[in-house]
Amino acid sequence: MIYLNPIGFIYTPFKTIENMPIQSAAAKGAAGRIMVREEFADGLKDLEEFSHIHVIYQFHKCEGHLLVVKPFLDDKNHGIFATRSPKRPCAIGMSILKLTGVNGRELTVENVDMLDESPLIDIKPYIPEFDVIEGDISIGWYKNKPKNLHDTRSDERFK
Amino acid sequence: MIYLNPIGFIYTPFKTIENMPIQSAAAKGAAGRIMVREEFADGLKDLEEFSHIHVIYQFHKCEGHLLVVKPFLDDKNHGIFATRSPKRPCAIGMSILKLTGVNGRELTVENVDMLDESPLIDIKPYIPEFDVIEGDISIGWYKNKPKNLHDTRSDERFK
Repeated sequence: MIYLNPIGFIYTPFKTIENMPIQSAAAKGAAGRIMVREEFADGLKDLEEFSHIHVIYQFHKCEGHLLVVKPFLDDKNHGIFATRSPKRPCAIGMSILKLTGVNGRELTVENVDMLDESPLIDIKPYIPEFDVIEGDISIGWYKNKPKNLHDTRSDERFK
Repeated sequence: MIYLNPIGFIYTPFKTIENMPIQSAAAKGAAGRIMVREEFADGLKDLEEFSHIHVIYQFHKCEGHLLVVKPFLDDKNHGIFATRSPKRPCAIGMSILKLTGVNGRELTVENVDMLDESPLIDIKPYIPEFDVIEGDISIGWYKNKPKNLHDTRSDERFK
């Protein structure tokens, strides 16, 4: 077992899963706030010079998990690890947020796509040289998905 | 506290931290293997159609954490959350691997940049529409870093 002590919390406008954006790429402008625990505040030094951050957080309202799911954007079943659905064996989410400000241990962010009060596990700077794959990429079922990311919101299926 | 039950393990050629590639982007071709636990194998359905995957894993050899570090690629100190250094409060790593095969619950992968036997927390498909930021990006200290990603290997500093 792995034990993690959250480094803070993410505060967002989304109190329930219904009608939430399903990815940060579809949450343009949605404003949120991150509070890092006092004891970890020194770890934020120089973060303000980055425009985008990865956040890793817990899907804290998910109970149990599914191995095969129909994701929001498709009408077919896929293995949970071939989707970004939240009801995963380790219920951990990963989003890229726009960082608009750092004030002490409080961060202001945009493009939030997670529930309010999500426990925050880590912040890492977004660095294209590490995070962007160049060359041929295959995206499986996503290539022919019937629904559009920007027109689709979450529903109750993974509650 | 957050309790996570690893979904499997990542096997790589790297038994110790010395001389390891410091990012998967600098580990081109380094071959590894992922074994997913039997009980989660059904979650891999359709994953083979993706060419790249995110893996989230534990830096299982890190003890304790640092809040301010000198990363491998710079000669100045930065907050741990403004770097990708492993000695983090929640010692969780994130890499993008090339997926070369899925055989039952075994995955063959390339571009591994983690220690052998790293406990695996999650696998998510790499989907550029979710994972690539378009437009203006600021990358802080990384912009003027004195060292080159591809010529730099890890050393003992975060042991």
